[in-house]
Amino acid sequence: MEEIKRVEPRTLSGFMELLPQDQIKFNEMLNIIKSTYELYGFLPQETPIIESSEVLLAKAGGETEKQIYSFKKGDKDLSLRFDLTVPLAKYVAAYYNELTFPYRRYQVGKVFRGERAQKGRYREFYQCDIDIIGDGKLSIINDAEIPSIIYTIFKKLNFGPFIIKINNRKILNGLFDELNIADKMKDILIVIDKLEKIGMEAVKEELAKLEVSKENIEKIESFIKIDGTTDEKLAKLQALNFESEIFKQGLAELTEVIKYVRLFKVEEENFMIDLTIARGLDYYTGTVYETNLVGYESIGSVCSGGRYENLAGYYTKKDLPGVGISIGLTRLFYNLKELGLINTENKSISKVDIITMGVGLENAVEISNILRENNISNEIYKEDSKVKAKFSYANNLEIPYVIIIGEEEVEKNMYTLKNMITGDQKLVSKDEILKELV
Amino acid sequence: MEEIKRVEPRTLSGFMELLPQDQIKFNEMLNIIKSTYELYGFLPQETPIIESSEVLLAKAGGETEKQIYSFKKGDKDLSLRFDLTVPLAKYVAAYYNELTFPYRRYQVGKVFRGERAQKGRYREFYQCDIDIIGDGKLSIINDAEIPSIIYTIFKKLNFGPFIIKINNRKILNGLFDELNIADKMKDILIVIDKLEKIGMEAVKEELAKLEVSKENIEKIESFIKIDGTTDEKLAKLQALNFESEIFKQGLAELTEVIKYVRLFKVEEENFMIDLTIARGLDYYTGTVYETNLVGYESIGSVCSGGRYENLAGYYTKKDLPGVGISIGLTRLFYNLKELGLINTENKSISKVDIITMGVGLENAVEISNILRENNISNEIYKEDSKVKAKFSYANNLEIPYVIIIGEEEVEKNMYTLKNMITGDQKLVSKDEILKELV
Repeated sequence: MEEIKRVEPRTLSGFMELLPQDQIKFNEMLNIIKSTYELYGFLPQETPIIESSEVLLAKAGGETEKQIYSFKKGDKDLSLRFDLTVPLAKYVAAYYNELTFPYRRYQVGKVFRGERAQKGRYREFYQCDIDIIGDGKLSIINDAEIPSIIYTIFKKLNFGPFIIKINNRKILNGLFDELNIADKMKDILIVIDKLEKIGMEAVKEELAKLEVSKENIEKIESFIKIDGTTDEKLAKLQALNFESEIFKQGLAELTEVIKYVRLFKVEEENFMIDLTIARGLDYYTGTVYETNLVGYESIGSVCSGGRYENLAGYYTKKDLPGVGISIGLTRLFYNLKELGLINTENKSISKVDIITMGVGLENAVEISNILRENNISNEIYKEDSKVKAKFSYANNLEIPYVIIIGEEEVEKNMYTLKNMITGDQKLVSKDEILKELV
Repeated sequence: MEEIKRVEPRTLSGFMELLPQDQIKFNEMLNIIKSTYELYGFLPQETPIIESSEVLLAKAGGETEKQIYSFKKGDKDLSLRFDLTVPLAKYVAAYYNELTFPYRRYQVGKVFRGERAQKGRYREFYQCDIDIIGDGKLSIINDAEIPSIIYTIFKKLNFGPFIIKINNRKILNGLFDELNIADKMKDILIVIDKLEKIGMEAVKEELAKLEVSKENIEKIESFIKIDGTTDEKLAKLQALNFESEIFKQGLAELTEVIKYVRLFKVEEENFMIDLTIARGLDYYTGTVYETNLVGYESIGSVCSGGRYENLAGYYTKKDLPGVGISIGLTRLFYNLKELGLINTENKSISKVDIITMGVGLENAVEISNILRENNISNEIYKEDSKVKAKFSYANNLEIPYVIIIGEEEVEKNMYTLKNMITGDQKLVSKDEILKELV
């Protein structure tokens, strides 16, 4: 063989690559998310990773656009998708006539953003999205179904207590309408959004800088400070007796959403009204959601989304209101791992490892076939190695059961079945193996 | 709203994007492939889509390199992966100390090649790969397990008869060794590879152009023409009585592989020895596989692979022999669809659609919760539409069952369950619904 110039086999920073036991856990989480989306009847969708830059960047601008991986191939300007919402908008606009509305879809896949590399920030990461898109209209009850989906997923993921925070942008908008400072709303919301980070006093100072009157700052403060149980918050909002139509509409929507969130059996401890959350200022127009892991609020929202008025305005004249959420699984996995909350209890996919000792592998193949026919994942150790090496393979991968076949077993037409967790082993027949393992 | 400049929502040619019913079928096929790989105990692997160009192109060159999507981001030269083998090599070299050998992994994901656009050729497409990588050595029995995996997958995919063609490169190499024309082997194999396309006479003419002697052309022809049953082919190869060590070794390996393929219960009609297949000339060194759908040979091999001597020579000095296969699912799906072999019998993920008529949605939420708790996928039609619109949603999506809740049902605490396929409907209790649907 000619002399080979070797390259260091490195993976780029900002790109997740896992060892098998972590990948098994990651896939388990991915499967919980997908199967829950399917339990609610969402249709699968898969759009290309590469799109025409013109299509993908129809709406983008500013910070997002800078992060996008764009390149030329031949005479084509191409980009890698940076979220799953723009491709959804393109898809719905393109196939509008072939879709049935409300169009309920999920898409789970990688998106790409060339962000500055830092801890927990990935340049290639999974988003797990669902959206419900209406044709011209979409019932508010859809907004109540979403927290039920989040609830089901995080219950199944089983990483401890979590809370889904719900708000309605129209209540915020209505407040500014009521105070006659709707023109400053955008700037004020940006300030309010910082509340958790900088505290109330700093928020008030920033509001003053925006030339909000003292009286209005006080009203904003008392609004933000509305507290108590979910029902108390609704009652206090009602008691404000605001005249603003947009406020009234928002409150009616929020009240209806809360009513149905309860009917969908989301437990009281797993949701709350949070009047401070606003999210994507240019995008969401009604209900908004964030989800926190209780005790780990610092990692930020682990599942967010909301209601928008028009999905695909950059592609079609059709009026397509929608509601949706996204789980950033790569980042969530990283954070949970950092917090020590990821149990990589499964290091193997095989439930059974089959080892021969001094007899031919044909004996192993026979029982392997039978296990597989019974849907029991298994593998045969096929290398001509010492007994110790054969067992250390099963040990390293923590395969739960080993079937040992030696001369005695072949003679008796039996198998030694070893439980690798308890260390127990016994001589059993094929039928007994199936009884034990199915 | 300001005037919006609209962009046509198009998808690039060469990129697959499916409507829901096709996506459901595509995902079913993907799940059959993944779950079969897991049944054989293969560990999941996921490498990044973007890699450093230096790493990804360590080995590439020629035609492949031209097709690669490469670009700069900041000062980094990046490329999109063009197969799953190079990332596997990188991964095994990088994590060698943390992996247990033989390392059995599957990776299912998209790869990217900027090929000339043509029918059935995709620039972004799924590969579904398994490989078994040994540390220094790898038993030949692994080569026999592979056809068993192909067999299980294509049986489950259920697209009709298929045949796995098996050969061993050492037999071909041994032939040239025996004929003392090993120096011309590469060129001759390229010619032989065209046999199915151009026929024997044209092959012989091309061999003559390569200055292969008439005598040797005759020997090559009689070798290629070896026919009969699998056992007859093995016997005829044996009867050649070649002296070449490499030939003897290849024949011994092929004989052992065939013996174990039978033990793995691959049916005789689903495999054969095909002495003409060579595949990736620079890469495979032993057993090679191709798989054809019987009657649809023109679409080419739907699952191919083989044994290689050294996976990761460009990244490590470690000797890492392996055997693996790949299924190009995007292309396979396209071809099956073109052939009319894809039944998109499922247009919905939901098994049940719940429709209210003149009563509140809270009645629907209750039964929806119960169905979900019993793992029955379902959805509620929530829009305030006419009855006809409600039913046409269920009809369009071909949801198998509809539960109808009207005033009578609420009064009696019963549900009307309609089987949308037979048209039968009956008034039933919650328990009866579960009995019928679980």
